[in-house]
Amino acid sequence: MTPDHYAPERTALLFVDPYNDFLSEGGKVWPRIRGVAEQVGLLDNLRAIVAAVRAAGIRVFIVPHRRWEPGDLESWQRATPYQRMAARAQTFAKGSWGGEWHPDFAPKTGDIVVKEHWGSSGFANTDLDALLKQHDIARVIVIGLIANTCIECTGRFASELGYHVTLVKDATAAASDEAMRAAHEINGPTFAHAIVTTQELVTALSAP
Amino acid sequence: MTPDHYAPERTALLFVDPYNDFLSEGGKVWPRIRGVAEQVGLLDNLRAIVAAVRAAGIRVFIVPHRRWEPGDLESWQRATPYQRMAARAQTFAKGSWGGEWHPDFAPKTGDIVVKEHWGSSGFANTDLDALLKQHDIARVIVIGLIANTCIECTGRFASELGYHVTLVKDATAAASDEAMRAAHEINGPTFAHAIVTTQELVTALSAP
Amino acid sequence: MTPDHYAPERTALLFVDPYNDFLSEGGKVWPRIRGVAEQVGLLDNLRAIVAAVRAAGIRVFIVPHRRWEPGDLESWQRATPYQRMAARAQTFAKGSWGGEWHPDFAPKTGDIVVKEHWGSSGFANTDLDALLKQHDIARVIVIGLIANTCIECTGRFASELGYHVTLVKDATAAASDEAMRAAHEINGPTFAHAIVTTQELVTALSAP
Amino acid sequence: MTPDHYAPERTALLFVDPYNDFLSEGGKVWPRIRGVAEQVGLLDNLRAIVAAVRAAGIRVFIVPHRRWEPGDLESWQRATPYQRMAARAQTFAKGSWGGEWHPDFAPKTGDIVVKEHWGSSGFANTDLDALLKQHDIARVIVIGLIANTCIECTGRFASELGYHVTLVKDATAAASDEAMRAAHEINGPTFAHAIVTTQELVTALSAP
Repeated sequence: MTPDHYAPERTALLFVDPYNDFLSEGGKVWPRIRGVAEQVGLLDNLRAIVAAVRAAGIRVFIVPHRRWEPGDLESWQRATPYQRMAARAQTFAKGSWGGEWHPDFAPKTGDIVVKEHWGSSGFANTDLDALLKQHDIARVIVIGLIANTCIECTGRFASELGYHVTLVKDATAAASDEAMRAAHEINGPTFAHAIVTTQELVTALSAP
Repeated sequence: MTPDHYAPERTALLFVDPYNDFLSEGGKVWPRIRGVAEQVGLLDNLRAIVAAVRAAGIRVFIVPHRRWEPGDLESWQRATPYQRMAARAQTFAKGSWGGEWHPDFAPKTGDIVVKEHWGSSGFANTDLDALLKQHDIARVIVIGLIANTCIECTGRFASELGYHVTLVKDATAAASDEAMRAAHEINGPTFAHAIVTTQELVTALSAP
Repeated sequence: MTPDHYAPERTALLFVDPYNDFLSEGGKVWPRIRGVAEQVGLLDNLRAIVAAVRAAGIRVFIVPHRRWEPGDLESWQRATPYQRMAARAQTFAKGSWGGEWHPDFAPKTGDIVVKEHWGSSGFANTDLDALLKQHDIARVIVIGLIANTCIECTGRFASELGYHVTLVKDATAAASDEAMRAAHEINGPTFAHAIVTTQELVTALSAP
Repeated sequence: MTPDHYAPERTALLFVDPYNDFLSEGGKVWPRIRGVAEQVGLLDNLRAIVAAVRAAGIRVFIVPHRRWEPGDLESWQRATPYQRMAARAQTFAKGSWGGEWHPDFAPKTGDIVVKEHWGSSGFANTDLDALLKQHDIARVIVIGLIANTCIECTGRFASELGYHVTLVKDATAAASDEAMRAAHEINGPTFAHAIVTTQELVTALSAP
């Protein structure tokens, strides 16, 4: 699957979870994804895409996970084991350094910060779909973390909702090579419209 | 339509927009609804329902409208005229007194504060539906403001989503008697399961 | 509120419930709306809009209510009183004349027939939103029946979802003048972008 | 993750796509999943679960994919490559044997047949969520096909919507062992509440 034309006024970059806990040395989840992240050159690729996207006039949507707060999930009947684990670790805790934006990826003027999501999909229980419509978006490029959870789930929802979905296989990471392969070789082709490398995407965005 | 049994562990009170701008002397929207509010005894009725609901062990969900912030709607392609008017008035502005909870209705421990909605429905673009499921809720009692906008629209969405919906015709207000009549006599019966007075509701909630 | 430009490739006509039971002499619901329908010239206006829309190259989406079938709602815990009444009357019964399209408004090649809705909103529990996205639609013109139930509720959902919404006040009907006034004078202006007459709409669609 | 108590009046079996094209010798997709299906004992396991579920008084929801019809997707702007491939193959074609229910799994009286879905999630663009609410369902057991597409995507949506999700790793199949592993070892644990074998599930359902 190759990328084709990305009309800037109809395309959005969805940058999922650019938190220190995910992307910075010392972050709570960084150790879990560091191996894959360094192997694919994650940070440099994220920087390259954000620069290319801004140069092309494509709008950036920040799609953040819930920042943990005291009391979270306590009265919930059916939080998932995975959610309970993240709550125990106080991942992305509100007011903590880990819950702040990685300094290279903090929102700039004109970026849209979507409501925080509780699970894996940036669309579920948030205003992402309506905000995309209000900005006339038909295509989404989904980058950030983690390849087989939030990126895949946000991509699956986007596809079901009628958006064109591009995954970038070296602008995300996961806990293992196998999880990366599950995201991009096994599952991605069943719902995405394009699965590309950062280099391919940057080239497509720079095309006249 | 009469209320019947409200099992506490399956019922939620949805209190929409308990802001000073709506409910307090000096609030930006108060002058527009004051006539009807005083006529139905709105503040006393809201206090009576909240007290009865808490006594019955029914959980309170606060369902707040977007607190205006600088930049809101500026890049939107299709904000409604009504939304643009509210943005110009900076209704419920973040950090302002008008955007604070009315002191009698601020959330208490155990209450759930839902994500802010951009339009009229407390369900649209928020986590209300998922949070109701996580608390095993099958019935919603919808009170607050305004009868023919946020209350009606939240009730309509609830009904479409499969919840049992109770409207309380003197625990809300609107700009005119005619708008109240539209909400409770003309439209309410087409989607709600019960339309009651505060007195009828309090009696039903106090039944053994 | 006046209509402005309707780009054909971004606009859809949502024609709600063009069934014989609603629109034809002998239909089950026709007697309830006949007074208003004849007063506003409903049938002629619907014909004029459909013709103008097709001439302009705007796509028609048929948005149908559930055709009643034996067993409907029987196991539901929380059908609304209004739904139960319609089920008892077997409105739009599958296989019956009343559940067939009015002959002037049957789908033509290229029209999209959306999934049937159970309540009042053509968006709730159907594929309408995804189908609009798949056809690049940003604006919806909502006509058909009934002004203060399915038309209003479909319009409210469209607005919350981020679409531009046009109501046509003489291309719908209701049980009373008061219900028409509730739909177009009291509630419509709080969520719609344009509320027009058939004549105004046809003129706007014919503009170069 | 182990199953615990499944209260019959709060639990649903979601049986996804019990079509001949998937489950019968001669079906269009059967050759693609046959290897895994025979290895896990798919057909026998599906029969055992359906029998145990019915014996326990748990309601069956049939969650069917769109039966292909002429014209499908032709006017869509952004069908996925995967959807286009299925349309070219006319999978589950309406009126064909392949689009009929496998004879062992046809709906029985009291079963609920949900609206057909266009993509992978049984919730997207259908009435599944509302129908589950109308039947007071809090837990879903998701079986059928394919493990890493419709089953996973329906499970992910269910989890985001607030349901308790059980996957059954030998009551589904996929094109490869690797895809099964992606579904149950890599992705499932990030959103599901229980991942069990047929034997474990049947035992749990038979417990007093």
